[in-house]
Amino acid sequence: MAATKTPPLDTGVPGAPSPGATRSRDGEASRARILMAARAAFDGKGYAQTSLREIARNAGVRPSLVVHFYGSKAGLLAATVEWPFDPDTVVRQVLAMGPDHIGERLADVFLETWEQDGRPNTALTLLHAACERPEAATLMRELFTTCVVDPIVTAIAPERAELRVSLVASHLLGLHVGRYLLEFHAIAGADADVLKQALASTIQHMCTGPLW
Amino acid sequence: MAATKTPPLDTGVPGAPSPGATRSRDGEASRARILMAARAAFDGKGYAQTSLREIARNAGVRPSLVVHFYGSKAGLLAATVEWPFDPDTVVRQVLAMGPDHIGERLADVFLETWEQDGRPNTALTLLHAACERPEAATLMRELFTTCVVDPIVTAIAPERAELRVSLVASHLLGLHVGRYLLEFHAIAGADADVLKQALASTIQHMCTGPLW
Repeated sequence: MAATKTPPLDTGVPGAPSPGATRSRDGEASRARILMAARAAFDGKGYAQTSLREIARNAGVRPSLVVHFYGSKAGLLAATVEWPFDPDTVVRQVLAMGPDHIGERLADVFLETWEQDGRPNTALTLLHAACERPEAATLMRELFTTCVVDPIVTAIAPERAELRVSLVASHLLGLHVGRYLLEFHAIAGADADVLKQALASTIQHMCTGPLW
Repeated sequence: MAATKTPPLDTGVPGAPSPGATRSRDGEASRARILMAARAAFDGKGYAQTSLREIARNAGVRPSLVVHFYGSKAGLLAATVEWPFDPDTVVRQVLAMGPDHIGERLADVFLETWEQDGRPNTALTLLHAACERPEAATLMRELFTTCVVDPIVTAIAPERAELRVSLVASHLLGLHVGRYLLEFHAIAGADADVLKQALASTIQHMCTGPLW
């Protein structure tokens, strides 16, 4: 599957309220420079250690322009996150073959998405920020539960659906951290196809099997 | 189960090489102050943002004394980590009732240990440090795989033991992060007994069930 990148989450503040095309183009360029500076700083120093003022300086704009575009540092973090997949497409793909194939399809999508994601990958950048700030934990929770697992489990409506959503999301997260950050021996070195199979059976169990 | 706290990992550098009891007591007091300053700094600012010099200053000692006691900043990190359980005891407890009860016993120990651990808990402090430095990732990996899961899975010797170790460790880690850091809805709010049951069946499956 080729994951379709979604545009960054945005805060809905209009890009450039100017009447002229030139000013509008300038606004777009400033936004892009601000985002680039924010990504570099969050990845390099961490979210908590980066100030909005510093991002503005690195982007060559006034801090008030950053506030005008993104509202706050938290808004800027949300804007820098490019989901590495389009949630609606993923949900459709995972559900396409019916409830008995959810584990297998979700394992496919999960591994294919992260294997092609460069380092530092989206989830690890967010996890790092989440250690420092609750607003990043919220974004991370959205990535792993609200956007993907929740609509899938809800569609098959098993008993204890909510608990299953959290278990599946935790399992995917744990595998992600174990493989890409902490490098647990046998999963950091494993071929994606081996992992897919192991992941598929566990996820299927969590989605449709007896919980206890 | 009452988890027995192990003493902090230490680097083996002798506490105070002095011949006199007074100098020895002074050495112990300095070590304690250094560790307290290091913990406060690592928890507060993060591992990467803290310098050894700064820890020495906060502890009221010379940097050379920190180096004498702990070798390096990484050695100091290892020394600040108090494992919230004694690995040998945990392994014995989990194996006591035989292979068919491993999931249930490991779920018990895992949840009881973390429920009684204060915040910021050991695993989250290490995870935060692991986002910044590989040496912290190594400590975290030891906590989740080498110290606990590896001896348990090795004792029951299933096929693909190494992969099972990593899967179980990842699952425990994911649940930990989902419950205590990202607060995934249904597991952050769940009663420990409900979680234990859900965790037990998944871990049992990963330890002794068919992997695919």
